[in-house]
Amino acid sequence: MDIRKFSLPEIIFGHGSMEYTGSYALQLGAKKVFVVSDPGLERSGWVGKLIEVLEASALKWVYYSNVSSNPRDYEVHLGADLYKAEGADVVIGLGGGSPLDMAKGVATVASNGGIIQDYEGANLIIRPLPPMIFLPSTAGSGSDISQFAIITDVARKVKMSLISRSLTPNVSIIDPEMLSTAGDDLIVTSAVDALSHAVESYVSLIAHTLTETQAVKAMHLILDNLKPALKTRDPLAMENLSMAAVAAGMSFSNASLGACHAIAHSLGGFFDTTHGMVHPVLLPAVMSYNLPACEAKMATIGEIVLGKRLSSSLQTAEGGIKRLKEIFLELGTAVHFREIVDDETAFPQICEMATKDACLLTNPRPAKAEELLSICQEVW
Amino acid sequence: MDIRKFSLPEIIFGHGSMEYTGSYALQLGAKKVFVVSDPGLERSGWVGKLIEVLEASALKWVYYSNVSSNPRDYEVHLGADLYKAEGADVVIGLGGGSPLDMAKGVATVASNGGIIQDYEGANLIIRPLPPMIFLPSTAGSGSDISQFAIITDVARKVKMSLISRSLTPNVSIIDPEMLSTAGDDLIVTSAVDALSHAVESYVSLIAHTLTETQAVKAMHLILDNLKPALKTRDPLAMENLSMAAVAAGMSFSNASLGACHAIAHSLGGFFDTTHGMVHPVLLPAVMSYNLPACEAKMATIGEIVLGKRLSSSLQTAEGGIKRLKEIFLELGTAVHFREIVDDETAFPQICEMATKDACLLTNPRPAKAEELLSICQEVW
Repeated sequence: MDIRKFSLPEIIFGHGSMEYTGSYALQLGAKKVFVVSDPGLERSGWVGKLIEVLEASALKWVYYSNVSSNPRDYEVHLGADLYKAEGADVVIGLGGGSPLDMAKGVATVASNGGIIQDYEGANLIIRPLPPMIFLPSTAGSGSDISQFAIITDVARKVKMSLISRSLTPNVSIIDPEMLSTAGDDLIVTSAVDALSHAVESYVSLIAHTLTETQAVKAMHLILDNLKPALKTRDPLAMENLSMAAVAAGMSFSNASLGACHAIAHSLGGFFDTTHGMVHPVLLPAVMSYNLPACEAKMATIGEIVLGKRLSSSLQTAEGGIKRLKEIFLELGTAVHFREIVDDETAFPQICEMATKDACLLTNPRPAKAEELLSICQEVW
Repeated sequence: MDIRKFSLPEIIFGHGSMEYTGSYALQLGAKKVFVVSDPGLERSGWVGKLIEVLEASALKWVYYSNVSSNPRDYEVHLGADLYKAEGADVVIGLGGGSPLDMAKGVATVASNGGIIQDYEGANLIIRPLPPMIFLPSTAGSGSDISQFAIITDVARKVKMSLISRSLTPNVSIIDPEMLSTAGDDLIVTSAVDALSHAVESYVSLIAHTLTETQAVKAMHLILDNLKPALKTRDPLAMENLSMAAVAAGMSFSNASLGACHAIAHSLGGFFDTTHGMVHPVLLPAVMSYNLPACEAKMATIGEIVLGKRLSSSLQTAEGGIKRLKEIFLELGTAVHFREIVDDETAFPQICEMATKDACLLTNPRPAKAEELLSICQEVW
């Protein structure tokens, strides 16, 4: 195999692990931490609890919550100005993918200067970032594990993919306790995002044993635990969904993603749709498009989804994709674009933008704008 | 589950990856690197190749090869003196477990002062170590991945276990190319060491999903690839053994080990035996001792070894242990202590010492000196 890289943050996992945030910040030399979160997490009480933990370690703090559900370039720049004005020294992100990606954006601009657009693409962040500690509040984005940050360029209506080793935080503190305040919709869209991370990274052109092992584990954990978690909020099932998001994050951070995320980023930049809502629509269609390029791996996915192999690899792969669509319907997610966006005429432009997304580089089957467009039309 | 940690170095894996050593050293701020290896790797040409790579990056270097097969305290102290006298700034270890553990010892004493005995046990290394880059030449020790270092206290005839997050190198560069110069014995003892890492960490009291997934993967890779690798030196089989050692290292570094390694360390300190020769003797006996405490997990191991489940968990577990003994015989390893050491009367003292080894803390079934002794007598 070609030369491959594998990296991840130090991971602290378990109920109540949020308590360790202060001591880790101190270990990383913190005197005044820059906390990024959002109003929803203030209301659910987690921001207050985190501040208590930080104050118990005698840390000064600044709080920034100017974060849209698709974090925006100007919000990053305002945050970086505040970080510098306040003389903060460690960045702590608490939340779903949006506050965590915002925290990455602030850390990048505050330490490397310029504007966030300067770092769109792969490995363009040269100078070291301030230490980062992330606490994910959802089981999905994997931003607390990954080398990725997704920030919207408002003028261009594009979600930019920033990919750099230095965007991996120093420490990810995963406290499944935080899922206890999440609603059904958030749990489902997060889990489907994680499932999409697992599937796309598993068939990625740069996947390797270490990433594939984690991707397969993530698929099993999500399919086995999502419905029980929704029905009963069983703590073990919730914990397994958190672990699945970590495993999927370990995989996609190192093997990258594919066409489903390339389109989802482009679509999200244009319509400002919630990222997690796009995958149930797109993932099965993208899997069908990719099938000819990776039949054996799609059959492995099919076997995980179906719980058995059918008489041929092709049948197992197709059976898995079909069953996945049914599962999304059973979960009550949208399965057509017309249910979540209102302007079909925008898709040629959206697919053109998607061809420039770094995630498309590792899609197992080459795709130009017209192929992406026909995938989108198929699920309109 | 309780709060668990998971960490590992940045991993670069693949044929020819040694070429990257210079650029990584520069990224870590190196001007003059301290290279630790041994005469065997000088003869096979790898030390010379590494030096070429470093010089191509215009790096100054110091070379230290005063490393016994069980690295000794005074060798560490001489190395640390040389490191400081030469004003080196980055430590590069090239070799099997011995040079890599030596590199860790030198980095520890050079940066934290005192003697290596000061750091025996868990989390006693306070001050940061110099950046470390490791290149494993065997597929076994996992020292390039792990938080462990094993150094012999010559006066006490004890192999000390040092366990600390800061003993994980910054970067592990795994070039399966290096296995091409290894002989059959080294490949076998290394693979069996990795298998023992996988088995002991899988049933460890602090194992969790992330470590278990890697342990299971490692067992599959070793059992599927060791014999083909020996027979044909098939590059893919060799690569899979390297990957297995990485996966097993990810598991035991974070879930620790058990009674087999506790005894192996104690025995190696007393008799100076080669670490890898002890496991084929001890592992099946320790698995049988631990079986009542972790029958379900031992059945999973049994299923991996046998390729099938028998009519009960107990039968599958016992069948796997029995088959593992046969596999070790087929590989031509020693399976009785009398084949590798000459003094049975030392075992009470060896087992007494083993009860003080940090690895015993995570063994799934409690064991006092007398239980360890009966295990050793069983396989004398």
